[in-house]
Amino acid sequence: MLIYGRNPVLEALKSGTVVTLYVAKGIEDSFIDQLEQLAGDAGGVETRWVARIEMDQEAGTTQHQGVMAEIGTLEWGSVDDMLTLAESRAEEPLLVLLDGITDPRNFGAIIRSAEVLGAHGVVVEERRSAPLSPIVAKTAAGATAYLPVAQVKNLPRFMEDLKRQGIWIYGAAQDSPGEQGARAGLTRLDYQRPLALVIGSEGDGMRRLVREKCDELVTIPQKGQVSSLNASVAASILIYQVVMARG
Amino acid sequence: MLIYGRNPVLEALKSGTVVTLYVAKGIEDSFIDQLEQLAGDAGGVETRWVARIEMDQEAGTTQHQGVMAEIGTLEWGSVDDMLTLAESRAEEPLLVLLDGITDPRNFGAIIRSAEVLGAHGVVVEERRSAPLSPIVAKTAAGATAYLPVAQVKNLPRFMEDLKRQGIWIYGAAQDSPGEQGARAGLTRLDYQRPLALVIGSEGDGMRRLVREKCDELVTIPQKGQVSSLNASVAASILIYQVVMARG
Repeated sequence: MLIYGRNPVLEALKSGTVVTLYVAKGIEDSFIDQLEQLAGDAGGVETRWVARIEMDQEAGTTQHQGVMAEIGTLEWGSVDDMLTLAESRAEEPLLVLLDGITDPRNFGAIIRSAEVLGAHGVVVEERRSAPLSPIVAKTAAGATAYLPVAQVKNLPRFMEDLKRQGIWIYGAAQDSPGEQGARAGLTRLDYQRPLALVIGSEGDGMRRLVREKCDELVTIPQKGQVSSLNASVAASILIYQVVMARG
Repeated sequence: MLIYGRNPVLEALKSGTVVTLYVAKGIEDSFIDQLEQLAGDAGGVETRWVARIEMDQEAGTTQHQGVMAEIGTLEWGSVDDMLTLAESRAEEPLLVLLDGITDPRNFGAIIRSAEVLGAHGVVVEERRSAPLSPIVAKTAAGATAYLPVAQVKNLPRFMEDLKRQGIWIYGAAQDSPGEQGARAGLTRLDYQRPLALVIGSEGDGMRRLVREKCDELVTIPQKGQVSSLNASVAASILIYQVVMARG
């Protein structure tokens, strides 16, 4: 999709969804500096210089303020792809469900770890996740090309579907007093089953509705004074624990 | 330390070492935009607006180009602090040595995980690490206040010192063919000993001289197509493995 105008393009650059940035020759240096700074932060943005008259034609208007951007998101996979991947490796399914991971770097980092450690896919809820943007792909270090990442409309309902298919759901609980009673010992659980792990947001953990659908709540033992692990680290440790237990 | 002038301040902002940014009233908007962008990326930067005449006095010159910055680094701890921390918890020492982790976000993320999971300190080599800057502290999410982080002149020599003190050194080897022969099974090692774990850089792993000083080389089993785990994730998994084995 092509967008134009300074504010829309700046916002798109900040959100990390810009694939190609078109800049009209002759715009002022200070604005170019600002664009370059944001494009550099986003990473993976291609910049092309075009004559203003070409931009008029491409945008179909002269109101582009000298800047245009092609924005793009990666393609979502499907849960079927994940189950197929598990089957092709003769492994029980291991999915990773994310509830409210809105930071694109955390999202990308989880995709990377899931792929490297041997999970079969990552699932997010449509309204409570970061877009599958170039910045996610960059943080995932190439893993988006190999690991299916799927989007579902409603995570609790999707968890019900998984359970009906015989997939057990273990949720990563925060190390908070309210949840301590429900926690299972991380090393004492059965990891041989078809599994989905749920990771909540760093601040709030899982939503109540999501937590209630979990078959087990697990927690990573924490000894420090600092409140919690980074979400991608917590996800990585849980995936590692399952993969090691499966041997 | 106070620095002034546009280029020095921009560079300091990029390196994440700026604590307070002083901006002279009346400088042009485009430069303010650039400063704000960089300060926002760095995080934790306080911005103060001052009259140009005050800045002349503070800087002791009129050549400040309208911008000044207080830069700072956090205080380094000592290895003795780490051993004391272990002793106070009645635990065998668990140190984390970093060889060439130059990305401040990775450095901060490792400090955070080390603190949360229960290691006793992080050690870096002076010339091969990121400065202990505000951006490191921010990524560490407060952990720098609790976990000693120390700097040594020469990591291989420091490893020799540790060994003489009875501390065993396990290095995290990349999953590359050249190192496969030397690897020990991650779960079959003795983690009850006083230990130091070495984490190399994501691209190059440990330097040869560092790798040769390790008592054991361990690797995290990787099943994916993507080359490797993020350095902070690898560090976190190894620390977790040790802490779990110690029970």
